[in-house]
Parts: sequence; structure tokens; C-alpha cells
Amino acid sequence: MDCIFCKIINGEIPSSKVYEDDLVYAFKDINPEAPIHVLIVPKKHIESAHQIDESDFQSVGHIHLIAQQIAKESGIDQSGYRLLTNIGKDGGQSVSHLHYHLLGGRQLKWPPG
Amino acid sequence: MDCIFCKIINGEIPSSKVYEDDLVYAFKDINPEAPIHVLIVPKKHIESAHQIDESDFQSVGHIHLIAQQIAKESGIDQSGYRLLTNIGKDGGQSVSHLHYHLLGGRQLKWPPG
Repeated sequence: MDCIFCKIINGEIPSSKVYEDDLVYAFKDINPEAPIHVLIVPKKHIESAHQIDESDFQSVGHIHLIAQQIAKESGIDQSGYRLLTNIGKDGGQSVSHLHYHLLGGRQLKWPPG
Repeated sequence: MDCIFCKIINGEIPSSKVYEDDLVYAFKDINPEAPIHVLIVPKKHIESAHQIDESDFQSVGHIHLIAQQIAKESGIDQSGYRLLTNIGKDGGQSVSHLHYHLLGGRQLKWPPG
């Protein structure tokens, strides 16, 4: 599988790991756009949020709980954060493996891109 | 309950409804930031994504499937879209009822706010 995120999950490509369990891998974005900018990725290769089905609900929900945990550990659970996923070209998706961006530590602006 | 989104769901406040079922209500954002800008809201009042727990996984997953459906019906499933939720002040959350923004129909920019 020639997927950069699968290689990060497998340890073939180094990353600044923030969290890992059986379902999920989280690491710091190499081009952070906020003081806290973490990518939360299901270990299962899913192309994007447009491809998830009911069998992925546990994984998607779990990613939200891990986002809560990372926000708390990063000290931004009270100040707030933005959680987002990009789908396809217009969404600005750069890697075709489902990932959620968690951004915080500054006031996020509007519009969101 | 003095929540504007609960009132929209209950029909007390009018909205441009896009979709509704037992779990979810979706309507057009009154201040659209893209040609397609829809809010997808669980009917259950949850303050934000920071408050969801395992009992909400079905609802959160379902919201993702409804996003897929709305993207397809809006003709942006091939071009792409961005799905995001704001938590608290720094996230830019304006209504304290969990909601996902679906934006598409143009190239979304980076950073995402």
C-alpha cells in the first residue's frame, strides 16, 4: 500500500506521535497552522469521510473521544478547538487516508478556509 | 430549553431544511461561506463534540452518512467538501448545540480558519 499515512502508522515513516491504540494513530502535523495541530487517523485505510459506512461508526466516534483527550492533555479543552476532515480536491484533502485535523491554541477564524 | 438549534429542530424558528430523520436535522447556513454550506445537527441537545460519549457514536456516524448524501444530492461528491465542527470560543462555536458544517462548491482554502 503506497499510502504515506499507512507508512506513518506502520512506523516506516517517522512522525511526532501524540497517541496510539488499536484503532487510531495521532501525530503532530508537520506544517502546523495553529499552536496545537494534530492529525487523528484511523489505522484502517479509508480513503476519506465520503467512504465510511456503518462498520466505521465505532472508529469515527472513537476519534472524537481521542480528540477530546488530546485537547485536554494539550490544555485547550477550555479555550476550544476545531475538528475537521477534508474530502477530495475542493476540500483540500492532501492524503487519501481519512484524517481529522484538530486545531487549537489560538482563535480559529471564519470562514474555515 | 433556550437553544436556537433546538427551536429550529422543533419548527419554532424557520429554516431552509435540507434533510430530516429521527436522529438528525440539516439546514442551510443563513450566512453561507461557500456555494454549498449546510449545518447537520443531532436532534439530541449535545453542547459540542467535546461532550459526546459512546452513546452518541451512532448519531455522529450517521451525521457523516447524511453528509455524504447531502454532498451527492448537491453535486459536490466528486469535487469534494470539508466537514467540520467548532468547539468553544477558540473553535469559533457560535451556538452551543453540536453541529457539523458541510462546505463545498468552491475550493476550500488552507489554513481552515
